[in-house]
Amino acid sequence: MQNLKLTIEYDGTAYHGWQVQPGLPTVQGVIEETVKRISGEEVRVIGAGRTDAGVHALGQVANFRTGKALAPEIWRRALNGLLPPDIVAQHVEAAPEDFDARRSAREKTYRYVILNGPVPSGLDRQWVLHVPEPLDPAAMAEGAALLIGEHDFSAFRAADDHPPDPVRSVTEARFETAGRRLHFVTTANGFLKHMIRIIVGTLLDVGRGKREPPDVQRVLLSRDRQSAGRTAPPHGLCLLRVRY
Amino acid sequence: MQNLKLTIEYDGTAYHGWQVQPGLPTVQGVIEETVKRISGEEVRVIGAGRTDAGVHALGQVANFRTGKALAPEIWRRALNGLLPPDIVAQHVEAAPEDFDARRSAREKTYRYVILNGPVPSGLDRQWVLHVPEPLDPAAMAEGAALLIGEHDFSAFRAADDHPPDPVRSVTEARFETAGRRLHFVTTANGFLKHMIRIIVGTLLDVGRGKREPPDVQRVLLSRDRQSAGRTAPPHGLCLLRVRY
Repeated sequence: MQNLKLTIEYDGTAYHGWQVQPGLPTVQGVIEETVKRISGEEVRVIGAGRTDAGVHALGQVANFRTGKALAPEIWRRALNGLLPPDIVAQHVEAAPEDFDARRSAREKTYRYVILNGPVPSGLDRQWVLHVPEPLDPAAMAEGAALLIGEHDFSAFRAADDHPPDPVRSVTEARFETAGRRLHFVTTANGFLKHMIRIIVGTLLDVGRGKREPPDVQRVLLSRDRQSAGRTAPPHGLCLLRVRY
Repeated sequence: MQNLKLTIEYDGTAYHGWQVQPGLPTVQGVIEETVKRISGEEVRVIGAGRTDAGVHALGQVANFRTGKALAPEIWRRALNGLLPPDIVAQHVEAAPEDFDARRSAREKTYRYVILNGPVPSGLDRQWVLHVPEPLDPAAMAEGAALLIGEHDFSAFRAADDHPPDPVRSVTEARFETAGRRLHFVTTANGFLKHMIRIIVGTLLDVGRGKREPPDVQRVLLSRDRQSAGRTAPPHGLCLLRVRY
């Protein structure tokens, strides 16, 4: 048996997220079916991040165990030869027996892209959230910085999510400006369900002047989902990398 | 009557190029239908560059004449409200009566993106040509530089294209490297049909070591399409801007 670690890029537009759901196309499901076509094995492909429907990845990490004696490089070629063009195995490597893409992950970095200007993009429309009304990036950055640290992020998690431990440690939450685009980049030891999208929705309220930057801390301390902003759409979000 | 100048961004993936073709979706056709829905007028929308099927644009320029007394800004909003999301009017402005997007154009700049590495991209697959075998960017740049100047580009035009004057003046033909991506950027007072794609096909031969950089000049001087390389696929190409 070998334990293979995959680094995967995907365009989430056509998928109902990472996680297998009966009767729906998912990234995990497609990869598991592709492994079956290669080795005949029914494997569970474990992903570091369970990305939502429509969320993308440049550096999702996954692993699975196989009894097929193929070199990782051959696995990569075989996977890419059979996967649809919107899912690509960028790297495949042998991992230690106890490597688990989800449980071994130390930090994940995501990016959320906002296109701020009166006119949307024709080319990037599936990867950026278009916000026509003027935003204040400095206020958004000020609000974002208040999230850094170890906190109970219950205010920023999906209403149907009840994690046993809602405390996460955010080490990065900053904005980069690239022309009309605002890139929100955030790193944490883990994220609750919809956490980044709710944070972005709340920071958009700050950017529009509907909230002040210190309100972000008030929302955080409330631990109440109702006090946070709306969940931003999924398509602006991309899993950039996972650190082990 | 007012003469409106449009700057248009589009994802060419779903279109059979710019130019109207009966029974096929084209960018020009979609814009003309949209104008008709707004003003009831049957206009001819003149584009600066007749991009091929699958070619994209960040800054295509077009113009049309309308009797509808709407401000350019209102035209832009109305167009973007009705155009499909893969075609966006970035700017609409009033132009002088004699402005013709095609004939008034002084220079056009295009970009061709090559992804050079063993693995394709899942996210950018519709905008980059994936070339797995190693390329020599320095040799490609050396060959490209030999195209700068005023030349008869008959060797780099589609076999079915018989322009009355095949002389064009190329002022820019250079490569930029961005990670695994090679961006070929070229500017000229005009391009023959398939000219950039045949140039890229020829430069890919240089990059693969199948031709030497000085061969590019030999091909140019031959004025013979047969001596040039293959026509590179359209999807790596994007019309960046038009200068007037």
